[in-house]
Amino acid sequence: MATVPLLSDEELSPRAAAVFAAIRKARGTDFVNNFWRALAHDEAALEATWAQLSAVMAPGALDPLVKEMIYVAVSTANGCSYCVHSHTAAAKAKGMSEAMHAELIRVIGAAMMTNGMVTALQVPVDEVFDV
Amino acid sequence: MATVPLLSDEELSPRAAAVFAAIRKARGTDFVNNFWRALAHDEAALEATWAQLSAVMAPGALDPLVKEMIYVAVSTANGCSYCVHSHTAAAKAKGMSEAMHAELIRVIGAAMMTNGMVTALQVPVDEVFDV
Amino acid sequence: MATVPLLSDEELSPRAAAVFAAIRKARGTDFVNNFWRALAHDEAALEATWAQLSAVMAPGALDPLVKEMIYVAVSTANGCSYCVHSHTAAAKAKGMSEAMHAELIRVIGAAMMTNGMVTALQVPVDEVFDV
Amino acid sequence: MATVPLLSDEELSPRAAAVFAAIRKARGTDFVNNFWRALAHDEAALEATWAQLSAVMAPGALDPLVKEMIYVAVSTANGCSYCVHSHTAAAKAKGMSEAMHAELIRVIGAAMMTNGMVTALQVPVDEVFDV
Amino acid sequence: MATVPLLSDEELSPRAAAVFAAIRKARGTDFVNNFWRALAHDEAALEATWAQLSAVMAPGALDPLVKEMIYVAVSTANGCSYCVHSHTAAAKAKGMSEAMHAELIRVIGAAMMTNGMVTALQVPVDEVFDV
Amino acid sequence: MATVPLLSDEELSPRAAAVFAAIRKARGTDFVNNFWRALAHDEAALEATWAQLSAVMAPGALDPLVKEMIYVAVSTANGCSYCVHSHTAAAKAKGMSEAMHAELIRVIGAAMMTNGMVTALQVPVDEVFDV
Repeated sequence: MATVPLLSDEELSPRAAAVFAAIRKARGTDFVNNFWRALAHDEAALEATWAQLSAVMAPGALDPLVKEMIYVAVSTANGCSYCVHSHTAAAKAKGMSEAMHAELIRVIGAAMMTNGMVTALQVPVDEVFDV
Repeated sequence: MATVPLLSDEELSPRAAAVFAAIRKARGTDFVNNFWRALAHDEAALEATWAQLSAVMAPGALDPLVKEMIYVAVSTANGCSYCVHSHTAAAKAKGMSEAMHAELIRVIGAAMMTNGMVTALQVPVDEVFDV
Repeated sequence: MATVPLLSDEELSPRAAAVFAAIRKARGTDFVNNFWRALAHDEAALEATWAQLSAVMAPGALDPLVKEMIYVAVSTANGCSYCVHSHTAAAKAKGMSEAMHAELIRVIGAAMMTNGMVTALQVPVDEVFDV
Repeated sequence: MATVPLLSDEELSPRAAAVFAAIRKARGTDFVNNFWRALAHDEAALEATWAQLSAVMAPGALDPLVKEMIYVAVSTANGCSYCVHSHTAAAKAKGMSEAMHAELIRVIGAAMMTNGMVTALQVPVDEVFDV
Repeated sequence: MATVPLLSDEELSPRAAAVFAAIRKARGTDFVNNFWRALAHDEAALEATWAQLSAVMAPGALDPLVKEMIYVAVSTANGCSYCVHSHTAAAKAKGMSEAMHAELIRVIGAAMMTNGMVTALQVPVDEVFDV
Repeated sequence: MATVPLLSDEELSPRAAAVFAAIRKARGTDFVNNFWRALAHDEAALEATWAQLSAVMAPGALDPLVKEMIYVAVSTANGCSYCVHSHTAAAKAKGMSEAMHAELIRVIGAAMMTNGMVTALQVPVDEVFDV
């Protein structure tokens, strides 16, 4: 259950429908996942969020698959189940193999572990790390 | 200030000194950062942690630079300042350019943003994400 | 599923029943949500938590609706689904409109985003912020 | 210390300088805080972030002071020291009194407390919360 | 739904089956919980994780029940539902009474509360805490 | 730097001074740490927080040292540096040995690690964990 209604295609305003059309075109599929349906009642947020994600996740100095794995890492640390699911699926769609997925999970686990140890130890930052 | 004393090279037990030697050899530098000095009073944890990180961060299906960026992403979401500093430095040492760093930060920001929106909206997981 | 049994009205001790009566009177409804039923097996915690929440969430320098939205914001950042649901419902009951809800979600998203960027950048606190 | 250099006014590109000019005009002060100086090396992110924050934090269904307090709440739960400092300062500048600040802190504390209790208890969401 | 398939006993590789046998022997039960079934597709991670948990959670300077309660505390703060469930069950199996469980929850709640207040107040660390 | 002024003994109101006297008596030392000095401007919160912590951290089904270690665990996962410092100091004052501290840190690290792996894997809760 969500805290807002999820909008079906029929319930979209013209402005929201235009964003859905852009999502479908960019992804090459008719499927639009629930995040966008939950956001569709706030047209300005829908437009701005889609524009931002399209720009940020596009190929650049980092390739899109690496970006999706970074997204999964952040979502995991924040405990966002939906985000872990949707971005793991996106990473798989962009070529993440089982071996890559397994390594991603081990890096996340190792990072979480030392994050905890470092914070419990309150390790001071080495001067050499200063830029 | 740390919650335990940071050990200098002179204060290391032979077992801890052996781990420090391995760290120096693997990294090709005499510098050993404070995390290991804080952990050095617990030889078993020092050995196990170094062994785990060496294995997890080694080249595999993912390259070491990608792993460092994933590490930074997790550390950021967990708010571990020391970890952000040390793994950003490690990523730079492994070839992260300014442009890559800038994109890493933008992906982290976008992920944090939608993590928050998704959780506030309590978006239900789409059935299609089921493996 | 909870890690403790949820108590029905019939299972309450007299001391827990008194707290439930106070909750019902304060809220003007017979409905008592699951948080209190899960807490009801620890009478001291039940009493103390109800007393604290009643005091903290009462009208004061901030109005109760603003307090509920702050509560939703904290609960979102902590990833507590139940809390997001219950306090979003409470905020709606206290007058949060759809437009207010939409803005709340956008502020949460923006804050999460810059929290991540600031932490990844390790921005030093400006001296001017010192009180 | 930051993970990127903080840019002084003299080091800004024309595009970044234009954003700084917009920040100064909107805030009515010559002071530009470190977040923007850390972000200034990535012009696209600087522009997009300022545009987003300007839109999200503007008066709307919620007033700007309420938005700043929500921002502080999220930043606190995420443990972002810089963000707590900068948005507490912004909230004070927009009229947050000592009494309002004190209540904000108590609501944050209460929310964190019940977030923890609810998660430890794994309280199931009441059906009545379904929209 | 998980992001990887959960392996049944019949689907285990010989190397994964050996770890499952070790888990069953150590715990004195045929039941193997889903975490291990989700991890079983990555034999190296399965072996390493079981070895680490066996070592860390063994009796030592702290008794195993105390360790389980610490585990629940961390898992709660991180919002990991599965971990709260599995380690609460483990703590009960190791002797955690209802009264101990109730106190655990109250300590977690109090810690979360003051964590939030301290972070919102940005309290500087007292010099006396320096080791 | 804090977001509120820290009050010296001379600046306390009579009501705040009474709480400080109670803290000194309970702890058997004249030292009062900064958390209470930051909270002292909000007398009601000062009284309520001291009363709650005194009750929650008192000996009960769990002994006070165990409670302090649980407090450190939660504070670590939440990334609250001040809280890690103050409650590690409190745990040491109540008898936490170096060996116990080392094990505490390893349990925290292991819990953080599996929290991350479980969340990335989205492991479903086993039916047997249902109470």
